[in-house]
Amino acid sequence: MEQGGDDIQALIALMARLPGLGPRSARRIVLQLVRRRSQQMVQLSQLLDRVAQNSRECVVCGNITDRDECAICTDPARATGEICVVQDVADLWALERGRAFRGRYHVLGGTLSALDDVGPEDLGIPTLLARIDDESITEVILALNATVDGQTTAHYIADALEGSPVTVTGLAQGVPIGGELDYLDDGTITAALRARRRL
Amino acid sequence: MEQGGDDIQALIALMARLPGLGPRSARRIVLQLVRRRSQQMVQLSQLLDRVAQNSRECVVCGNITDRDECAICTDPARATGEICVVQDVADLWALERGRAFRGRYHVLGGTLSALDDVGPEDLGIPTLLARIDDESITEVILALNATVDGQTTAHYIADALEGSPVTVTGLAQGVPIGGELDYLDDGTITAALRARRRL
Ligand SMILES: [Zn+2]
Ligand SMILES: [Zn+2]
Repeated sequence: MEQGGDDIQALIALMARLPGLGPRSARRIVLQLVRRRSQQMVQLSQLLDRVAQNSRECVVCGNITDRDECAICTDPARATGEICVVQDVADLWALERGRAFRGRYHVLGGTLSALDDVGPEDLGIPTLLARIDDESITEVILALNATVDGQTTAHYIADALEGSPVTVTGLAQGVPIGGELDYLDDGTITAALRARRRL
Repeated sequence: MEQGGDDIQALIALMARLPGLGPRSARRIVLQLVRRRSQQMVQLSQLLDRVAQNSRECVVCGNITDRDECAICTDPARATGEICVVQDVADLWALERGRAFRGRYHVLGGTLSALDDVGPEDLGIPTLLARIDDESITEVILALNATVDGQTTAHYIADALEGSPVTVTGLAQGVPIGGELDYLDDGTITAALRARRRL
């Protein structure tokens, strides 16, 4: 068998382990890259190398950054007293794309899970509580997934903050913009109905 | 906005242009790579660089290889007198995975298309005809997609070989109408090859 040499096969195998990819999609990607090897492939290799060398987690919030502290944590304009707690960096990026939140973040890096033995310390929840004091936070927005694990984690943090002066809020639940009712799960539609508002 | 720095955003944009990926899947991949930056990301960068430097098209058949001539073209055991004509390297790989064909290949790199102004010379069809003479070929297997363009190309090659002593065959029915070889399971492609018929 000759399928491009050992390096190509190793590259396909490595690509196939990336999220959302498999052997077939990895082969298609590698073939396109080989066709564009002098441009796209070299560029991709160099960017991956630079990002691998320079990227790290922000020591304060867990965002991905190329410095010790990310641009949000070092921007004085974002010291609004609000901190938005998210599960993953992907969620932080999604909120930033929305441009609606101007405070700071705290990335948990997961959810509490008895099954997977993930406790509050693994998610940096003690660090979050310390930041709330240090940074004079007045509102903690729990922007966690509307999954069982996400909501368990939200309740844990809300409980830990009970009695403290901060306001704890969560994202509104309802029908997404452009969402068709017929495509929503029953839980979402029920929650949206319960939280109905006067127009 | 802080979404990991300019290099990360450039990396996501480059990844999002790969076949089958988009901005969302590219973000997920990049986030996983950053989490595994000291291992998986460095390894991926290095493999991409090596493949970009070393890979090229086999000067004889068009297969991807890390030498001037691929291992199939230089293996005397594969001088069986059969040549299998495929549209893309992905199809060659699919046939090799089936392990049923022991001859050599000719990769067209596309199909004839009046619309896109792709003629026989663009696909190396004159080179194929020359190889049939030079390599004492007795059977040409047209393993082309069961699409309109694939079948147009197959007929063009069959017509060009009319009157020559070579037998021209095509894959058996069993390749679904409109089906692309790269998307078939290995068993189907092998069965279709075994049941190939004279055109
Ligand atoms: Zn930060
Ligand atoms: Zn070759």
